[in-house]
Amino acid sequence: MCHGVIVRRCPDARVIDLTHVVPRHDVRSGAILLRAALPYLPPRVHLAVVDPGVSAAGPSGRRAVALRTVRAGQAARGPGQRAADARRRAAGRRGSKRSTSASRRSACSRCRATFHGRDIFAPVAAALAAGEPLASVGEPLPVDALRRMGIPSAALGDGVLTAHVLRSDTFGNLILNASNEQLVELGATLGDTLTVRHEGARHTASYVATFADVTPGELLIYEDAQRMVSLAVNRGSAAQLLGADQDDELLILPA
Amino acid sequence: MCHGVIVRRCPDARVIDLTHVVPRHDVRSGAILLRAALPYLPPRVHLAVVDPGVSAAGPSGRRAVALRTVRAGQAARGPGQRAADARRRAAGRRGSKRSTSASRRSACSRCRATFHGRDIFAPVAAALAAGEPLASVGEPLPVDALRRMGIPSAALGDGVLTAHVLRSDTFGNLILNASNEQLVELGATLGDTLTVRHEGARHTASYVATFADVTPGELLIYEDAQRMVSLAVNRGSAAQLLGADQDDELLILPA
Amino acid sequence: MCHGVIVRRCPDARVIDLTHVVPRHDVRSGAILLRAALPYLPPRVHLAVVDPGVSAAGPSGRRAVALRTVRAGQAARGPGQRAADARRRAAGRRGSKRSTSASRRSACSRCRATFHGRDIFAPVAAALAAGEPLASVGEPLPVDALRRMGIPSAALGDGVLTAHVLRSDTFGNLILNASNEQLVELGATLGDTLTVRHEGARHTASYVATFADVTPGELLIYEDAQRMVSLAVNRGSAAQLLGADQDDELLILPA
Repeated sequence: MCHGVIVRRCPDARVIDLTHVVPRHDVRSGAILLRAALPYLPPRVHLAVVDPGVSAAGPSGRRAVALRTVRAGQAARGPGQRAADARRRAAGRRGSKRSTSASRRSACSRCRATFHGRDIFAPVAAALAAGEPLASVGEPLPVDALRRMGIPSAALGDGVLTAHVLRSDTFGNLILNASNEQLVELGATLGDTLTVRHEGARHTASYVATFADVTPGELLIYEDAQRMVSLAVNRGSAAQLLGADQDDELLILPA
Repeated sequence: MCHGVIVRRCPDARVIDLTHVVPRHDVRSGAILLRAALPYLPPRVHLAVVDPGVSAAGPSGRRAVALRTVRAGQAARGPGQRAADARRRAAGRRGSKRSTSASRRSACSRCRATFHGRDIFAPVAAALAAGEPLASVGEPLPVDALRRMGIPSAALGDGVLTAHVLRSDTFGNLILNASNEQLVELGATLGDTLTVRHEGARHTASYVATFADVTPGELLIYEDAQRMVSLAVNRGSAAQLLGADQDDELLILPA
Repeated sequence: MCHGVIVRRCPDARVIDLTHVVPRHDVRSGAILLRAALPYLPPRVHLAVVDPGVSAAGPSGRRAVALRTVRAGQAARGPGQRAADARRRAAGRRGSKRSTSASRRSACSRCRATFHGRDIFAPVAAALAAGEPLASVGEPLPVDALRRMGIPSAALGDGVLTAHVLRSDTFGNLILNASNEQLVELGATLGDTLTVRHEGARHTASYVATFADVTPGELLIYEDAQRMVSLAVNRGSAAQLLGADQDDELLILPA
């Protein structure tokens, strides 16, 4: 239905469905996916909706935000944006950043809106895609009023890298909050065997470049296409093997 | 494959996939989804296929129907259409209605057609989108020959609203055949607590405007975006909580 | 993300998603699906990626291949192509065939590529769609260097047709490697009852033209829309009924 709403307002818009499998209420997974995808997308209007459920700030604390962020040559990411309700527009200006608290624009006057994606976000995204200025879709909102999402950081100390599971994907790969640089600081080099500890259990993982570097069924630790350190099982599921889930703590150390 | 068939016949057609998750054989769910979506879609050709399996009229009783329905300003719905095999075309005329029993137009002469969606419906929809007149795709069919789909109605009596589950969606929300007006007639106002009875069990539901008005895990009754009364659990599944399924009867009464 | 990569390189490209449900590592199912779909698609660039996992030739044995195949009037299939990594381009020439070992063209210079679909195949497909010559995307590769996929054949002997399950689809239909001609050779005519033996169990199947020719729950054997002999249960799952899976052997004989 969002496609229909967008086409009615902006018939020339080309719409790309990036993903519909962000888990419900999981704003952080949505943010991580969006951040990973942006470099591959044309610098245009991006529409992101994740139902945050009852947020920490309370249900009334949720704002629909239209945000323009620009860096040279790409649709850049500014501080403080929330994937849950960010609609960005990368315009031709450099270094500018403006955000707007988007007002409702119901596509269907006969309906009382319930779905923000269809009734607010899609119409506003279509309006921006059609060339309407950002200022026209809502009241100005100071960038300082946006909240920065807290994503836990991996920490290196005493020869142990303490990392967390940011999310597990549909293949059971576990995406961690660690960087490849931290593995290097830990002293690991490609081809090494590392120990991964999770809830008392110890697992052995090969630190390699690609899945094909290990035999089927073997656990590997690698830098994925979004430059995030991940755990996977060749032709299997690391999430299942470790019994690990989002936010779980993992200790990574030399074998 | 339907996309390919359509593009070959009408290269300029823009194709929007509305849904591919209508349960198999569930013509009624398809009809309800289509009815809900039409106000948000451009008034163009709509292609709807649900395999009805063995229908009440017998396998040979199924007709492929192309239907033009027009109301001022929108793709209107006429009486007697069946979602399973309705292809509509909203033209510029007002109040006109014509239906046609569509003839086969195989896209692939080397194949004996088995899939109606690909081999009959998609080519006909593409032909209509390309501007072919409705009369060209089949024999005229009197509107009276179409069957009206039976959707059970909710009934109010003795202070009880007897409703039925039309369908449950992927979130476990139960969409009922009751209207918000019927809840008002029952004497309910937003914020009230209502009793929902299902197979002997009693549940308490808050009559509210949105999910955020109840705490996680709580049952709510609300008017959804398609203006249908629905039961849901905030961050949960009403279908699971009640153990209710399509066509089940529910009694709704003041607490 | 592949859509984004393609649009950035070739803004006018129309992208049709044929399927995303080929089982992981199942190159053969991908090949069968692609072969079945090609006659319905416009003769343009086709991008096919199936992660083959560790192939028989070893992980380093996998080549990314761009292949141009032409037959009169359609995007033809040449010998030796592999669905896993075939990108074809049907040009205006007749009977020509050229293949190229595609070189990497990262869409994102800041990223070390991991996903071949996004970082190699999509950019190359977009380049070909934009009109770049096949020779520009990699080194020439003799057609003889391509491997022909081994798909087991059904064999008729002693009044028994020995067939295999090529794949089961999402409905639980079992697609066999037998042809309708082989059923005819077996002596079967539409309306006959046939015996299907699988792992010692005997099942009775009606040899019919369509699902509607049998009652719900009944096993049928029929020629599907891709002209492949298949087993299905009307409103049910043949895979479940038989407990059969890919590559299983089935014996088909007169009842």
